[in-house]
Amino acid sequence: MKSPIPDYLRQVLEKARPDTSGKLASYIDVLAKADPSKMAVALSTVDGNLYSVGDDQVEFSIQSISKAFVYALAINDAGLPRVLEKIGVEPSGDAFNKLSLQPGTHRPMNPMINAGAITAHTLVAGENATVEQRVDRILKAVSKVAGRKLQVDEEVYEAELKDANRNMGIGYMLKAAGIISCDPQEAVRGYIRQCAIKANVRDLAVMAATLGNAGVHPITGEQIMPHQSARQVLSVMTTCGMYDSSGDWVSRVGMPAKSGVAGGIIGTLPGQVGIAVFSPKLDERGNSVRGVKMFEQLSSEMGLHMMDSSQVGRATVRTWTMTIAGGADQPHECEQEVPVFGLRGAVRFAGSERLTRAIVREISPPNPDDPGSGRHTNACAVIFMLRDTYSLNYVALRIISEDIRRLLEAGKNVVVIDPAKVLTIDGNPAFKDKSPRVVNDEAEARHYIGGQGCRAVSHSDELY
Amino acid sequence: MKSPIPDYLRQVLEKARPDTSGKLASYIDVLAKADPSKMAVALSTVDGNLYSVGDDQVEFSIQSISKAFVYALAINDAGLPRVLEKIGVEPSGDAFNKLSLQPGTHRPMNPMINAGAITAHTLVAGENATVEQRVDRILKAVSKVAGRKLQVDEEVYEAELKDANRNMGIGYMLKAAGIISCDPQEAVRGYIRQCAIKANVRDLAVMAATLGNAGVHPITGEQIMPHQSARQVLSVMTTCGMYDSSGDWVSRVGMPAKSGVAGGIIGTLPGQVGIAVFSPKLDERGNSVRGVKMFEQLSSEMGLHMMDSSQVGRATVRTWTMTIAGGADQPHECEQEVPVFGLRGAVRFAGSERLTRAIVREISPPNPDDPGSGRHTNACAVIFMLRDTYSLNYVALRIISEDIRRLLEAGKNVVVIDPAKVLTIDGNPAFKDKSPRVVNDEAEARHYIGGQGCRAVSHSDELY
Amino acid sequence: MKSPIPDYLRQVLEKARPDTSGKLASYIDVLAKADPSKMAVALSTVDGNLYSVGDDQVEFSIQSISKAFVYALAINDAGLPRVLEKIGVEPSGDAFNKLSLQPGTHRPMNPMINAGAITAHTLVAGENATVEQRVDRILKAVSKVAGRKLQVDEEVYEAELKDANRNMGIGYMLKAAGIISCDPQEAVRGYIRQCAIKANVRDLAVMAATLGNAGVHPITGEQIMPHQSARQVLSVMTTCGMYDSSGDWVSRVGMPAKSGVAGGIIGTLPGQVGIAVFSPKLDERGNSVRGVKMFEQLSSEMGLHMMDSSQVGRATVRTWTMTIAGGADQPHECEQEVPVFGLRGAVRFAGSERLTRAIVREISPPNPDDPGSGRHTNACAVIFMLRDTYSLNYVALRIISEDIRRLLEAGKNVVVIDPAKVLTIDGNPAFKDKSPRVVNDEAEARHYIGGQGCRAVSHSDELY
Amino acid sequence: MKSPIPDYLRQVLEKARPDTSGKLASYIDVLAKADPSKMAVALSTVDGNLYSVGDDQVEFSIQSISKAFVYALAINDAGLPRVLEKIGVEPSGDAFNKLSLQPGTHRPMNPMINAGAITAHTLVAGENATVEQRVDRILKAVSKVAGRKLQVDEEVYEAELKDANRNMGIGYMLKAAGIISCDPQEAVRGYIRQCAIKANVRDLAVMAATLGNAGVHPITGEQIMPHQSARQVLSVMTTCGMYDSSGDWVSRVGMPAKSGVAGGIIGTLPGQVGIAVFSPKLDERGNSVRGVKMFEQLSSEMGLHMMDSSQVGRATVRTWTMTIAGGADQPHECEQEVPVFGLRGAVRFAGSERLTRAIVREISPPNPDDPGSGRHTNACAVIFMLRDTYSLNYVALRIISEDIRRLLEAGKNVVVIDPAKVLTIDGNPAFKDKSPRVVNDEAEARHYIGGQGCRAVSHSDELY
Repeated sequence: MKSPIPDYLRQVLEKARPDTSGKLASYIDVLAKADPSKMAVALSTVDGNLYSVGDDQVEFSIQSISKAFVYALAINDAGLPRVLEKIGVEPSGDAFNKLSLQPGTHRPMNPMINAGAITAHTLVAGENATVEQRVDRILKAVSKVAGRKLQVDEEVYEAELKDANRNMGIGYMLKAAGIISCDPQEAVRGYIRQCAIKANVRDLAVMAATLGNAGVHPITGEQIMPHQSARQVLSVMTTCGMYDSSGDWVSRVGMPAKSGVAGGIIGTLPGQVGIAVFSPKLDERGNSVRGVKMFEQLSSEMGLHMMDSSQVGRATVRTWTMTIAGGADQPHECEQEVPVFGLRGAVRFAGSERLTRAIVREISPPNPDDPGSGRHTNACAVIFMLRDTYSLNYVALRIISEDIRRLLEAGKNVVVIDPAKVLTIDGNPAFKDKSPRVVNDEAEARHYIGGQGCRAVSHSDELY
Repeated sequence: MKSPIPDYLRQVLEKARPDTSGKLASYIDVLAKADPSKMAVALSTVDGNLYSVGDDQVEFSIQSISKAFVYALAINDAGLPRVLEKIGVEPSGDAFNKLSLQPGTHRPMNPMINAGAITAHTLVAGENATVEQRVDRILKAVSKVAGRKLQVDEEVYEAELKDANRNMGIGYMLKAAGIISCDPQEAVRGYIRQCAIKANVRDLAVMAATLGNAGVHPITGEQIMPHQSARQVLSVMTTCGMYDSSGDWVSRVGMPAKSGVAGGIIGTLPGQVGIAVFSPKLDERGNSVRGVKMFEQLSSEMGLHMMDSSQVGRATVRTWTMTIAGGADQPHECEQEVPVFGLRGAVRFAGSERLTRAIVREISPPNPDDPGSGRHTNACAVIFMLRDTYSLNYVALRIISEDIRRLLEAGKNVVVIDPAKVLTIDGNPAFKDKSPRVVNDEAEARHYIGGQGCRAVSHSDELY
Repeated sequence: MKSPIPDYLRQVLEKARPDTSGKLASYIDVLAKADPSKMAVALSTVDGNLYSVGDDQVEFSIQSISKAFVYALAINDAGLPRVLEKIGVEPSGDAFNKLSLQPGTHRPMNPMINAGAITAHTLVAGENATVEQRVDRILKAVSKVAGRKLQVDEEVYEAELKDANRNMGIGYMLKAAGIISCDPQEAVRGYIRQCAIKANVRDLAVMAATLGNAGVHPITGEQIMPHQSARQVLSVMTTCGMYDSSGDWVSRVGMPAKSGVAGGIIGTLPGQVGIAVFSPKLDERGNSVRGVKMFEQLSSEMGLHMMDSSQVGRATVRTWTMTIAGGADQPHECEQEVPVFGLRGAVRFAGSERLTRAIVREISPPNPDDPGSGRHTNACAVIFMLRDTYSLNYVALRIISEDIRRLLEAGKNVVVIDPAKVLTIDGNPAFKDKSPRVVNDEAEARHYIGGQGCRAVSHSDELY
Repeated sequence: MKSPIPDYLRQVLEKARPDTSGKLASYIDVLAKADPSKMAVALSTVDGNLYSVGDDQVEFSIQSISKAFVYALAINDAGLPRVLEKIGVEPSGDAFNKLSLQPGTHRPMNPMINAGAITAHTLVAGENATVEQRVDRILKAVSKVAGRKLQVDEEVYEAELKDANRNMGIGYMLKAAGIISCDPQEAVRGYIRQCAIKANVRDLAVMAATLGNAGVHPITGEQIMPHQSARQVLSVMTTCGMYDSSGDWVSRVGMPAKSGVAGGIIGTLPGQVGIAVFSPKLDERGNSVRGVKMFEQLSSEMGLHMMDSSQVGRATVRTWTMTIAGGADQPHECEQEVPVFGLRGAVRFAGSERLTRAIVREISPPNPDDPGSGRHTNACAVIFMLRDTYSLNYVALRIISEDIRRLLEAGKNVVVIDPAKVLTIDGNPAFKDKSPRVVNDEAEARHYIGGQGCRAVSHSDELY
């Protein structure tokens, strides 16, 4: 069977194709001569599956899309506090090429406008780096995310350098305001070079997915940037990525995104996918006309709007009962009913809360108002099934550990089926007096509680 | 066992308590006389569990928090297009009480600044509604979400009405610009009245959770507002909710939020929780000092940042094999291996993509580069296990339907275990020629495929 | 003979008449129904001669023209320091109906925008004045300047009151900012009433001439306002009177001016004339199209540009010699040559400087580089002829007094022919030791110096 | 006798000296090391008398003062329309170093902010001029006005060039906006060089007086720039010269002015004087502290406020009667009374209007309401005495010519005593049918009218 996903993407592409409105970026010849018929879309899942259709091998200069990744690099190389000292995070309400320095601090309003992006560029590779070192660092870093060696489009670079007056103006203003410390000419030169890096939609989709995957490369699994950096970049893309139409974009598309003047746009839904589109003709705000159309379609049809919680899952906690009968060598331990609490997926607060609620309901004395409650008030053992638990975040770990601690304190025998060791035992303050028994599978759990002769019967699954 | 969650909230509360900085809202007496020692936090899960600690019964005027809900009401009563015609969605970069009308359209920049909120107020209950009708509609609507009859704090209302010059100014400006059509005095009076509605943190947490639960009331399950409205409100809260520090708030806290000058703040993480905090002393931006602290703590510890994808789940697709042996009456159908594809949770694109990938891998001819692939190339039947599937969104439904269509077309016998009927069969264009068999449980599936005598053996679960 | 001046004005009028572009003020019906064919121009000299042509009896509401006079009244009633505390004097660069409050102080930028004008209105007639008292005071004051009892156009007043939302908005904003202390509704009501005062171009020309005549009514000679108030009003009209095209107006027309939305414009060249024009159709800035044309013509042809110094006079100092022969009873005082220094006009620094230069040249020892110098080094008397001296300002008085003091100190006999007593003698510190002789005419001077038998011969007038 | 004027200036200087507040310009070392004790003031009359006291030989860089003169040069070299296309004339309300480009046109708001001044610099000496040619042209031009060869302070130039980031930023922005066409680096370099020109207060006072003397050099009498250019420069200095405190400056000082960061300020009262002050310590707006004090003193004491019309002259028209008796050969023409109209000074509209009024009163039939009118209704001749008339502007010439034409038409014999030929006869359309008789003195007039035997008696001078 062939996957229908490329077919779906093709439909998205073809639906946008008839719109031939918009204009090629006219400020430099080489962009003005781009082939307006080219278009492509690529989608990378956060676990590394990459789909693409259309002119997905056509390379184009990434332009402002570079701002997101260079901001991440600046955070990496200079540290977030230093970066925040030099570049704000507030939407400016201005077009991309406005100066938009904050009164008082003279910081550029955010790293997505040119002034902020030029500043971010100068924070890469250390105070004393040369322009060549900065560009080299950036090129290597984005190549690593793209998964192949990217190149600078020298023709674009040369052409933009010739028409760099506005950015040069911004560079000198930043120097005058004490925001950048290197030579403004070099800062702008380096910035223009980073904008001229060539990529195709497949490269960009993987790059977007890396941001949406907490900085972990979706294919190689390498931690490309700390997850806090990815979070910071996505936060700023959310409020500032589409310049003066950011609010509109969040409302309609609902994904952190960044567009480039050569016709590319990237977007990501954290934890789900990275998307990149390409089509050179631009609307009056400088965004690819068909690119925006494709994003709108993908967002509404694929349910990618980050504020759309209508279909967020809840089936992560399940509870059932095992009847464990003692074996021949343990005759005094006759058949007993042991509640099992199963937890699936990546557990954050909501999951741990549901688990806790389930435990309280089963283990506490029966509540007259809640007919099914108190079924296992007298159970002497409790099993946690964490085999399908992908991860626990800080608060979930804390709450589940506390649940276990309280059960142990109440004299229950607690067994945790946790082959992947998602529950931290060593050094966990909840277990400093007493720890639960951690086992690898149900058989071990049964054995530990009741011996070899046990039978487990699961009945009346309860979904929390 | 007692739930540790209130204990956790109590810790959050106590950690913020020592900060006695900030000032009471001084512009009206009744707020200036609030008891600065009061503080509370409440948390409602999207499935209706409500936790709260501190002064959780203390009522305070909701003030600007009302803006979010009245915006939702305006969308409901006037329709989104009409609302967008009158109120923008872009961050203004200005303080809450700035006029901030967009050049050209004269629309208020967004519904979270006063100008936009007053406009939203006038769009409630129809063009010809009186101020009493509008306020009555609002009061009933928020009471319904809060789950109890809320009241207007008449003392606050009277006091604010006396000091309403700035808002009166805004009201007349809006009238002059043709944005509002009713009497400005009435518009402002109604707006002030909506701001004076009293609630406690428990009410507000449920209200926040309703927004974060796609408009479905977390306790009653009632669809309070269309999920598109909830999405729109949350989108605007994300980019504009915290006025001129919205970018900073998104970076640090990462939740759509709204604060009120009486010391309340609400926030929500879509699909997870609604949160409300209260403490009357304000920072210079007009946000509750301790409230912000509590939110920062909750966000970082509870992993509630919406851009934090580090722990988003992936374990939603599982595949295994059933060996089905024909019964005595079906001797010609000897033992066969049937692949089963299990799908859990609320499935959006990412889940359907993983499922598709799993199907392709199992059913397509073996790929020499992928040792485990092609195991069921020749299977004559395929089972989809949708028992644990909470929901399918549009694109997931489309992709899975197409998967099934292609399998049917390839001559496979497709059985869908779908007791809750999440897979739409009737009218689904993928099934207009041929439909899969839908059954309620594994036994039925087995029976259908192989007859009564089947044995199912699940081996080597594969996780996608 | 008939004066050609009305003919000249008629030419100006007719040259502008063919321009029928522009639109009637449309925001209220009564202005929109004005007869667009009406037009008039009036000119009042600062000494009270009034010329007018066209529809010079047609009354129209003065609208924003009232701002200039009410600002003067506010200065009068509240004092300049209080007025400056409440209203700035800087151009706002904004349109007339912009709020334009200064950051920090929240003062309206200047009294010519609506916010400043409403504030000025509230400063008239004392803190506790009612709106009726303020309007009554204003109406009486402008009637006095116009020289006849002006009336409020009740139809215009009622119509504008109905459409006063923007101004009401401004009023409440001013109240909120603590700029005005009275009820905003009353402030705006009063302001609208002052704008609805009816006048014709003849009234307005005299009003303008009063401002340009240092506050002295050109016809009655009454000091309507202190000259410092007139100066302040004209200063602000210069930089702010034409809103966001003030710079352009100063460059092209070069007169302090103020226009009203009913089609009137006033302007004045200090010390020369007051001008008023009328024609109802407005350009997109809200100024009368033909009115602007007439002003441009009058300015360029009549040389009224205040920065046009090409034809400013210099012939105010003249010096000659009288030969005075002693009479019969003074035989020992035989014929002597006495230098006479004649000073004409209103003497400011420039005149006194020229006089001083003349004295130094005549009285000091001959300068070899200056052939004509030192002619009267040995003169024992000096005559100052101040008969044609209209006035001396502070510095001129000081310098001429000092000249005389030095001549007296050098032993010269100084006689001042000063029938109008423009030279202050009593209390003048320069004369505390010794005073010059003040006489009424040449005969007295001659008599004083030489006796009855003197003959005066004026030869070789020297012009300074 | 020594002139008291230097003594007066000395008093002004000493009164300001005790104020040691303010700070030296700190942005470049060479300015920061200026001697803060230096101070000077100079004053040049428009007819070339120059007074100065204090450190009047100390040279300092003129800095922004250059903007006024380079704007004049730009107008000269590129023409006013081209200059207006590139640079606006509206106050920006911004500080001097703000970009302040007009929306839409991107023109700098005015030539007094840096952006406008850099643009003006590039308009000097033609499109293709090199930076050296532009600077050379500027240096020669200002040297000519100063009356001696001025030099560039190379140390200041080098230092400012090193710290020119903000101006470089502005330069590139202007280039990007298409406002300047030359290389931005060169434009800024040239601009900095023009700012580094050294002058002392005496040079600057003469330069200011040239602007105030309609472009005519006060000493050499050479027309340095067309009077329209001088008017344009002064207009812009009035509304924009003191940046964001221009309104305040006009109100308090009332003179077009321009200050420089090295501590110089120039100002002028058109037709009267040019003033320059110097003292290096600056207030927070960048204006010399003591310089401003001295200007305020000079303005208020010397009556130099341009809106202060309290002492403008009116005594320019005088009328008297000559009794002319016919000689022996004209016995039939016995003694007749001829009215004489004398006109003094530079006559603009106001003077011609007064003259006309006088003529109408004397010549028209007696008006019963005006007892003295109609005294010369039957006079067969009229004499105009223009000996003391310095000049007639366009409208005055037109009106007086028309007066004469009407008298001639009425059959009067008109004689004009006009030795300097201020009344244009040839080509004057009023005289195309008939001309008045122009003579050189009274004797000629008498002779022409009555013959040798005439006696003239002047009685009852009437002042208009």
